[in-house]
Amino acid sequence: MNIWDGGRRRVYMQEVGTRDGFQSEGIFVETRDKIALIDMLSKTGMAKIEVTAFVSPQAIPALRDAEIVLREIERNPGVIYTALVPNVRGAERAIDAHADELNLVMSASESHNLSNLRMTRDQSFNALKQVAAIARDAGLPVNISLSCAFGCPMEGDVSASTVLEWAERFVEEIGSRGVTLCDTTGMAYPRQVAELTSQCVERWPQTELTLHFHNTRGMGLANVLAAIDAGANRFDASLGGIGGCPYAPGASGNVCSEEIVHALELMGYDTGVDLDALIAAARCLPPLIGHDTPSQIVKAGRRLDLHPLPADFAAVRERTMQGKLKPKPHYGMNIG
Amino acid sequence: MNIWDGGRRRVYMQEVGTRDGFQSEGIFVETRDKIALIDMLSKTGMAKIEVTAFVSPQAIPALRDAEIVLREIERNPGVIYTALVPNVRGAERAIDAHADELNLVMSASESHNLSNLRMTRDQSFNALKQVAAIARDAGLPVNISLSCAFGCPMEGDVSASTVLEWAERFVEEIGSRGVTLCDTTGMAYPRQVAELTSQCVERWPQTELTLHFHNTRGMGLANVLAAIDAGANRFDASLGGIGGCPYAPGASGNVCSEEIVHALELMGYDTGVDLDALIAAARCLPPLIGHDTPSQIVKAGRRLDLHPLPADFAAVRERTMQGKLKPKPHYGMNIG
Repeated sequence: MNIWDGGRRRVYMQEVGTRDGFQSEGIFVETRDKIALIDMLSKTGMAKIEVTAFVSPQAIPALRDAEIVLREIERNPGVIYTALVPNVRGAERAIDAHADELNLVMSASESHNLSNLRMTRDQSFNALKQVAAIARDAGLPVNISLSCAFGCPMEGDVSASTVLEWAERFVEEIGSRGVTLCDTTGMAYPRQVAELTSQCVERWPQTELTLHFHNTRGMGLANVLAAIDAGANRFDASLGGIGGCPYAPGASGNVCSEEIVHALELMGYDTGVDLDALIAAARCLPPLIGHDTPSQIVKAGRRLDLHPLPADFAAVRERTMQGKLKPKPHYGMNIG
Repeated sequence: MNIWDGGRRRVYMQEVGTRDGFQSEGIFVETRDKIALIDMLSKTGMAKIEVTAFVSPQAIPALRDAEIVLREIERNPGVIYTALVPNVRGAERAIDAHADELNLVMSASESHNLSNLRMTRDQSFNALKQVAAIARDAGLPVNISLSCAFGCPMEGDVSASTVLEWAERFVEEIGSRGVTLCDTTGMAYPRQVAELTSQCVERWPQTELTLHFHNTRGMGLANVLAAIDAGANRFDASLGGIGGCPYAPGASGNVCSEEIVHALELMGYDTGVDLDALIAAARCLPPLIGHDTPSQIVKAGRRLDLHPLPADFAAVRERTMQGKLKPKPHYGMNIG
């Protein structure tokens, strides 16, 4: 058994498209459409769905309907419905709307945290400690998403020891149930992923470790495989691969849920996901967001979605075998 | 040492953009532009360049200038200049134009070969045997590219034994120097790649084995890594990731040269390629072909191409640390 052969190993998929994807769309997806889409996703076998974010409606108008969406979706008891919360106010709103988990967020990079959140990392940590206390009082688990865990677009490399130090504070001081290492701008590469993942798995075997990759530089699936090889079994991904990167206009966003599931299932991993249902959900996205998605699976279909033989195939074969047809290397299809 | 850590292992890159890419472009790239581009590529460290194809100018007008291009490029003695030839006529033209190698082509799938070339596989083999004899007389090595080695868009799976049988005939009956396993329509997946590659490496350790992947379903880099893990060290790739798939309009084409080199070099492999020079060449493509390429590296830059801090960063940090600035989780950049 090697990494290329899943041998039915279980991998848990977590959908983030309605949060990480929709937050960066230019248009507001109607509340009823969001709810209908999440209801579809709830039936696909996703282990967790990041439904929305409880942030300022002025800051991210695309998610201004967070309460209604989280309240009105149909809950599947097999799915954890999580929501991103940046602060105490967000936590209160998410708890009111019956989130199953609060996903806290700060950056492993000081420059990114300061630029993005206008807090030092220490200030963020202290604020999130309060948020975690509120969650604890409400009986809810928290997860910490560490942005820029594989590099910062301004600072460059972020050392593994820095990432581990912040993860440790959340796991050991706050008792976070889970830690997500976020490759916010697509800087992770497989060797680095394997190293950092091994260290996390070794130090906190009881902590739910999630890897959150963006495919910005085409390394998404390879990073997922490197993480699995190092012991991870839980991945964020976004339907249609939506969710961009402000540093790379036109580049891909989050790793695409249906591409990752398609590849892992072919390799023999057990994602628990119904790929047909997932692709059906992905096909609903373009009318909602007003453009095509980067999903290669939506464009190309699954590996064994076959194409019909040419209409004249039988005649061509017959005449070819009788030597009556001149070879015609027209390469109308593809020669490489 | 594992697959994620290259440990300076040598991997040979072979550029196919001016053949597999340009053949599927709607417009004719000017001859002088082709020559200038290949001259740039010759200085990047590519081990081999598939310059063009000697096919009927009526069939593929995009490559109707094959002779002039192959004759007029500046040869770098460290690079093998190969050309695709489908038949005796093509071989004669390629030899006249001083190709270093002839790249023969047929499909491992009977349906694909019949539909595309209007020959049975046996007929193709016999015709290519003649081509190989001409190459031998001219003192030139041949390579055989087996299309659909990982699946046929009409038949579905193509068994490993079928692929090995055809490879064997070329290696053992014809004495082909190299065999290229082509994933013509992006059906290869890593487990399959690892298995088929191991078998080829084991049976023909002296044969130059190339893997030619398309990224149609997002598995390109993962397939490259699976092949390396199984003993391969030679890959076709296309500048900018150009080269489409007629079965998947809008989907990616060949794996992208600069994405593969970028990832492998980060992981510690030695591709021998100057990534800066390669990216510079990739940036020349859009004006030649009239559209952007799928290259994520051209869009996003290399992993450590950093971005400046915001103009007000120093002031924000100062005031934040003095507690004078209200936290502002506006997430203008990215929170995931």
